[in-house]
Amino acid sequence: MNEYFMRVALLQALKSYKLEEVPVGCVITKDNKIISTSYNLRESTNDPLGHAELIAIQKASHVLGSWRLTGCSMYVTLEPCLMCTGAIIDSRIERLYIGATDPKRGAIESVIPIITERLMPHHIDEIEYMDTISGYILSRFFKNLRYKKSLKVDKNL
Amino acid sequence: MNEYFMRVALLQALKSYKLEEVPVGCVITKDNKIISTSYNLRESTNDPLGHAELIAIQKASHVLGSWRLTGCSMYVTLEPCLMCTGAIIDSRIERLYIGATDPKRGAIESVIPIITERLMPHHIDEIEYMDTISGYILSRFFKNLRYKKSLKVDKNL
Repeated sequence: MNEYFMRVALLQALKSYKLEEVPVGCVITKDNKIISTSYNLRESTNDPLGHAELIAIQKASHVLGSWRLTGCSMYVTLEPCLMCTGAIIDSRIERLYIGATDPKRGAIESVIPIITERLMPHHIDEIEYMDTISGYILSRFFKNLRYKKSLKVDKNL
Repeated sequence: MNEYFMRVALLQALKSYKLEEVPVGCVITKDNKIISTSYNLRESTNDPLGHAELIAIQKASHVLGSWRLTGCSMYVTLEPCLMCTGAIIDSRIERLYIGATDPKRGAIESVIPIITERLMPHHIDEIEYMDTISGYILSRFFKNLRYKKSLKVDKNL
């Protein structure tokens, strides 16, 4: 089931890609059922809280009628940033599956190893990095972005 | 001006208090003008993103039409948690004024000294702890809460 839920998250990431947003998708499940899906919308909505994880957490809390997402699992295509990591821990999500590491902003283990420090009042029970094409999608997105920017620079010459 | 803006944040915190929410208030200013106010609403709205700082950041981004709150200052009556600290750093807020420390969840210096580690791609230029009655309001709130809970326990005996 984990592979299936991560594939749904990857399809969500492609929705961000089409909007020229950094392609990140997210799925939250409870009892092996999807209760929330989302994708990064920060630029389109001009909302600093527009990361896929936060949107998914908010949606899931509406579905469950509680801000405590006890018993829930999150599948996200990119390692969460500090803000999202805080929200994941705080909302009591129990299992976290990650599609690619983020060496620049990742707050699970890459930049700030919050989880391993176990300093928070709560913690995520299970964290797993999965083998996905998320890294490939992201690197292709940023390559395209650089190419488009270079075209703009050429026009300004 | 800092004292005035913090007083406005404290008045916001009292709105949370009346709703039996942990009393935390927040104000965001730009060019010495208030562009956003908010107070903690997590329990009332059942929203894991219902912390005062996140609501204020989202409101401010609507006012400015951008998720980058460059040049903005935040006044918050309690030291931000990990999620809110991430959002503050990520939204480029430049100055942060805090009304009381949070020894259990504070992510500025109390539990996880994110800022001092300077591991993030961005950082807050200026952080100041102010001398306020916020700590008194919070301890009175939790004292009342414990008292109410003890009454409930008595009834169940």
